[in-house]
Amino acid sequence: MGMMGASLALALKNTKAFRGRISGVVRSEASAGYIREMGWCNAVYTASQPELGHVIRSLEADTLFVVGLPVGSCVDYLPGLRGLPFLVTDMSSTRRSVEEAAAGVRFVGSHPICGSEDTGPRAAREALFEKRLCIVTKAPHSIEEDTNSIVSFWSTLGMDVMQMEASAHDSIWAYLSHGPHILSGMLAHWGFSTDVQSALLKAPVPLTGGGFRDMVRIAGSNPEMWLDIIRTNGDQIKRVLVEFRTELDQLIQGFDGKTDIEWKTWITEARRKRNRLCGYPEDK
Amino acid sequence: MGMMGASLALALKNTKAFRGRISGVVRSEASAGYIREMGWCNAVYTASQPELGHVIRSLEADTLFVVGLPVGSCVDYLPGLRGLPFLVTDMSSTRRSVEEAAAGVRFVGSHPICGSEDTGPRAAREALFEKRLCIVTKAPHSIEEDTNSIVSFWSTLGMDVMQMEASAHDSIWAYLSHGPHILSGMLAHWGFSTDVQSALLKAPVPLTGGGFRDMVRIAGSNPEMWLDIIRTNGDQIKRVLVEFRTELDQLIQGFDGKTDIEWKTWITEARRKRNRLCGYPEDK
Repeated sequence: MGMMGASLALALKNTKAFRGRISGVVRSEASAGYIREMGWCNAVYTASQPELGHVIRSLEADTLFVVGLPVGSCVDYLPGLRGLPFLVTDMSSTRRSVEEAAAGVRFVGSHPICGSEDTGPRAAREALFEKRLCIVTKAPHSIEEDTNSIVSFWSTLGMDVMQMEASAHDSIWAYLSHGPHILSGMLAHWGFSTDVQSALLKAPVPLTGGGFRDMVRIAGSNPEMWLDIIRTNGDQIKRVLVEFRTELDQLIQGFDGKTDIEWKTWITEARRKRNRLCGYPEDK
Repeated sequence: MGMMGASLALALKNTKAFRGRISGVVRSEASAGYIREMGWCNAVYTASQPELGHVIRSLEADTLFVVGLPVGSCVDYLPGLRGLPFLVTDMSSTRRSVEEAAAGVRFVGSHPICGSEDTGPRAAREALFEKRLCIVTKAPHSIEEDTNSIVSFWSTLGMDVMQMEASAHDSIWAYLSHGPHILSGMLAHWGFSTDVQSALLKAPVPLTGGGFRDMVRIAGSNPEMWLDIIRTNGDQIKRVLVEFRTELDQLIQGFDGKTDIEWKTWITEARRKRNRLCGYPEDK
């Protein structure tokens, strides 16, 4: 359990509708001690504990096993759960590779869209999942009853659940998250230009305003997490970035010919689409 | 006086080191009434008042005249102040066109880097300028004494002041503000793709997470203001967007060959440059 897993344990513990036992696996003895002290789990194991494998293989069929690993590690971990009787889900931010890795596992995928730049169990927040969106992607071999269980599990935690195909998920979040992560990183590389650098040397305070800062915020995210996302959704990220380049080409041409009315239409449309995408009122 | 001008009047009124008289010009009778009621100015005029021209032409040489118009209107307005004895500055976000328009005006340019998406005198904030950066660009014909006056004027309001050439300013803010505005608008257009739209129709809540929302925030800015910036700094915006496209091309090629270590270096460098640009500690 990192930040997400510990938040999940904490939220479950405080959810009246949930009456099950909670067991957690953490990486370090320090984290195990912390979780025990906070009382968020009925049992805590460390990943290196020799008896852990036996404990997992002995779990009953009515267990829900939530893999809270980064997507790359999740893909490596899932095949070890093949043939076991209990239902498995995950919390990874790409879907197709997880679904492939889950072949032979009693599995329904989940992507709870929430998180934080902070890591580890001490960053846990009880309200992390509340009122946030969770995408549930049933695998080709998932049975309907299991899908329903996963939907109701996240709903119990106050999430809005939406079902989707893994491939649709990976395309949509290439636009809404993975591509923007790359573009945010690009903005940092590009903004750190020769002109800006030489001004920075003389500047009494940073030169960046709020707009730029907001746009490069996610360029500060965890490199391991990014790399995992690039590894497991690279084809879709590349595809959407090629689309972005095509739109950028057209826009650059606009500087030599677009009329004021055409620019204004483009700007007004951008605002309207932003409002639609973010669920803001039309006039915001 | 819009939001910026009214904030300036309010801040000056409450700055002990400032003991001058404050006169303001607003667009509407309603705004004039509001400013009078708040007591922020010693005199308020509306832009359509017939005697305004005479009042301005009669101002003494020790007056500081701050043009608080959007850059396009500022460029149109400045030539009318040619040959008058008082010192003029402005608050526009592009510099070269303003400097050209100020030929024959006793002028030193200012770009206080602060603002808000809200408009009009009712959005005024006393602390708007405090601890923010102000770029001062002296025109080729500015005299040193006037430049010093403008620097000390903004410093009195608690701003950090940096002097710069108009052309350097317009290049730097093409990277740090104008280009990012365009890219934010592009993200909204691009994110509103067919795939995303069809998911939106079925989604119980918006699909966008915090990263995307932050990156499209400035796509909601005032279209008139954007258009002015494109009109007056289009050549530099185009130049930096062409650079962005070149970097995007290289990055897209990376999806077919970059190793994990190369990606990690790229990601780590993006984070480091972000921290440098925004003045964050290295480890943030």
